[in-house]
Amino acid sequence: MSYTEIVHEVRDGIATVTLNRPDRMNAYTSTMRAELLDAFDRIDADDAVRAVVVTGAGRAFCAGADLEAGGDTFNQERSRDMFAGDDVLDDGTPRDGGGTVALRIARCLKPVIGAFNGAAVGVGVTMTLPMDVRFAAEKAKFGFVFARRGIVTEAASSWFLPRLVGISQAMEWAATGRVFGADEALRGGLVSRVLPPDELLPAAYELAREIADNTSAVSVAAIRRLMWSGLSAPSPWDAHAADSRLMAALGSAADAAEGVTSFLEKRPPSFPLRVSADLPADVPDWPVR
Amino acid sequence: MSYTEIVHEVRDGIATVTLNRPDRMNAYTSTMRAELLDAFDRIDADDAVRAVVVTGAGRAFCAGADLEAGGDTFNQERSRDMFAGDDVLDDGTPRDGGGTVALRIARCLKPVIGAFNGAAVGVGVTMTLPMDVRFAAEKAKFGFVFARRGIVTEAASSWFLPRLVGISQAMEWAATGRVFGADEALRGGLVSRVLPPDELLPAAYELAREIADNTSAVSVAAIRRLMWSGLSAPSPWDAHAADSRLMAALGSAADAAEGVTSFLEKRPPSFPLRVSADLPADVPDWPVR
Amino acid sequence: MSYTEIVHEVRDGIATVTLNRPDRMNAYTSTMRAELLDAFDRIDADDAVRAVVVTGAGRAFCAGADLEAGGDTFNQERSRDMFAGDDVLDDGTPRDGGGTVALRIARCLKPVIGAFNGAAVGVGVTMTLPMDVRFAAEKAKFGFVFARRGIVTEAASSWFLPRLVGISQAMEWAATGRVFGADEALRGGLVSRVLPPDELLPAAYELAREIADNTSAVSVAAIRRLMWSGLSAPSPWDAHAADSRLMAALGSAADAAEGVTSFLEKRPPSFPLRVSADLPADVPDWPVR
Repeated sequence: MSYTEIVHEVRDGIATVTLNRPDRMNAYTSTMRAELLDAFDRIDADDAVRAVVVTGAGRAFCAGADLEAGGDTFNQERSRDMFAGDDVLDDGTPRDGGGTVALRIARCLKPVIGAFNGAAVGVGVTMTLPMDVRFAAEKAKFGFVFARRGIVTEAASSWFLPRLVGISQAMEWAATGRVFGADEALRGGLVSRVLPPDELLPAAYELAREIADNTSAVSVAAIRRLMWSGLSAPSPWDAHAADSRLMAALGSAADAAEGVTSFLEKRPPSFPLRVSADLPADVPDWPVR
Repeated sequence: MSYTEIVHEVRDGIATVTLNRPDRMNAYTSTMRAELLDAFDRIDADDAVRAVVVTGAGRAFCAGADLEAGGDTFNQERSRDMFAGDDVLDDGTPRDGGGTVALRIARCLKPVIGAFNGAAVGVGVTMTLPMDVRFAAEKAKFGFVFARRGIVTEAASSWFLPRLVGISQAMEWAATGRVFGADEALRGGLVSRVLPPDELLPAAYELAREIADNTSAVSVAAIRRLMWSGLSAPSPWDAHAADSRLMAALGSAADAAEGVTSFLEKRPPSFPLRVSADLPADVPDWPVR
Repeated sequence: MSYTEIVHEVRDGIATVTLNRPDRMNAYTSTMRAELLDAFDRIDADDAVRAVVVTGAGRAFCAGADLEAGGDTFNQERSRDMFAGDDVLDDGTPRDGGGTVALRIARCLKPVIGAFNGAAVGVGVTMTLPMDVRFAAEKAKFGFVFARRGIVTEAASSWFLPRLVGISQAMEWAATGRVFGADEALRGGLVSRVLPPDELLPAAYELAREIADNTSAVSVAAIRRLMWSGLSAPSPWDAHAADSRLMAALGSAADAAEGVTSFLEKRPPSFPLRVSADLPADVPDWPVR
């Protein structure tokens, strides 16, 4: 699959996914949706990728759904773009397209860093909620504008947003539909850093490097699934059972020997295990529906 | 039902509920409980109400349970006031009265803003936890004083408080029973703004106006249920299923057409749908027990 | 059981548990694990104990797993120390040892305060996540270093950490394995105060005193279980049911009469109930597995 609305590059262990419709402020379409799903499949399958940075081309990150269809934009009979095409729920309801992207990112085996170079509105921000870390340029703007468009918060954001920023902040942003700046995003916990524009991508890559240079890829993949799917775990005893199985499986594997030995020898580690081949079967996951 | 311990007013799309026993610091009674339940039923049924502000008359917000019965205050045999009268659990246990108010507010179809004009102690603060946003006057005080009275945190606050402020802050406040000021409430995340007394209600109304003037009432009602009941959703796939059904239902309805069209035409929206008639059946809710 | 790797003392209603292998930076071993489990059993059984402070002897809090076994440290065949010995899951997997400590602390009937006098790394920090409050000395350091050792976050920390500090901060710390200072721990919400070294224990004891001097032990025990196990409760209606039963049970008991009466008489309370004898059977708990 070759991409027309995103760019996918891998360099020095870090994948960059760039939303790439700069003349349309990278507005989201069904093509972009399909390309994002494909890119994350490639990222998971590619052992050369240790971390992912997602950003936008031009002055916006993603202006949200492309509104070219006007008042019919969200009408499933006339604009299948906003939905997932043939991918439907058990009852035949077309899946919310943004949700298919968000849930794909939630299950990614590599850490994902969102770098907001500019406006992120509607699905442009909700699809980033299952990313691990979000950094923003000073001029970035955000908006959970759904109530101003007569629809609802989508992309499973009613699940992710209150868990990221608390229910009060989530409700304030979603009930007003307000567009707000990077400072408010920082205060509210939506992003963890605000940076001058030319420091945004370097900061994202620095964090990605910190992961790539120091850690076991299999450990990080297992931890990412433990943490994110653990948000759904009924109790800490579920986490304990998963921990016990993974500590038994990975504690006697080669990365654990290398991790401790390299630390004791005060040298950089060189971890042999690969995510594609060596991820234990016991890594937890959500029941996907 | 006419009210003796609260005042319920509606003006310009915003309901104000005022706890109104100023000579008793608005201490909570079984009468106040019944009146609050009734007022929130009226608020949900009244399409003219787009948002709710709750505040107190006089110098307190609510001093907590009225302690007129002294040591018998919380004894269910002698003080049914603290309980829900004939409203019992399946096993016959009288329901905690504060809980019936909190859970009614949690399911409200309109956003609720708490405006703490003064002290909010015991049930006076726990009943506000399912409100969406809380603002405090500088002189407001708060206390989860239950452990100092020999009882437990009620009004389902063991569920709401850790989700609002984190388990550590929740345990520190609940285990000490400390009375604390507005600054500590702000730092701990219990309130999102602290204001001079004469700016408190204007700020609450400004937020209510931002919601009323810009958004679809049906969208906001659906989003409020998605977010709050979503705190209970087992996984983001549940949210995704709910999103898909609501996007399908609302995306082809009149508010979505108006929302996109008014935005593209750069004019204020005029949303035709009404909560009383047009809320989709698929709006999620808690299994109420 | 007499202790060789921890010290357990009780004074004026406050237990102090000191990790005590200062020549090994209090590195965690199977002996320390067993002694901690025993100490928390004694703490729960001892009505003289109203609160617990946990700290480390010497310059570290706990440097994590003792790495004396080198590359075999986490290999369950060769280093049963990191596991729970004969205590296994239903499928025979040896339990993660750190998890058995964390889950024991999570169920403690007395509030637990962690006082980080120095470095807390690996299991040295994860075992503290189910404590109620964490204070740090300025020089304390922290690290969720598991991905740098080729293993996974253990001690049920995939459950506790995102609920304490949010999923983004949890993933940033866990995916990088970074060692970070007290200021970053404070900003990220891992600790609630950072203090000069000689003010650390006094601050921890001051908080413990605030609990011990003002509250009902039975109330605090019931509230701790409500709050922590309530993090697992499917919905606020579960909390409401638990509240109703506990308000019925405790509202008519002696501590509630004393709590209200002493407050009205403006005198310190003297609560008669004891945790060992008077904790209602309805206090909720996790389904322990």
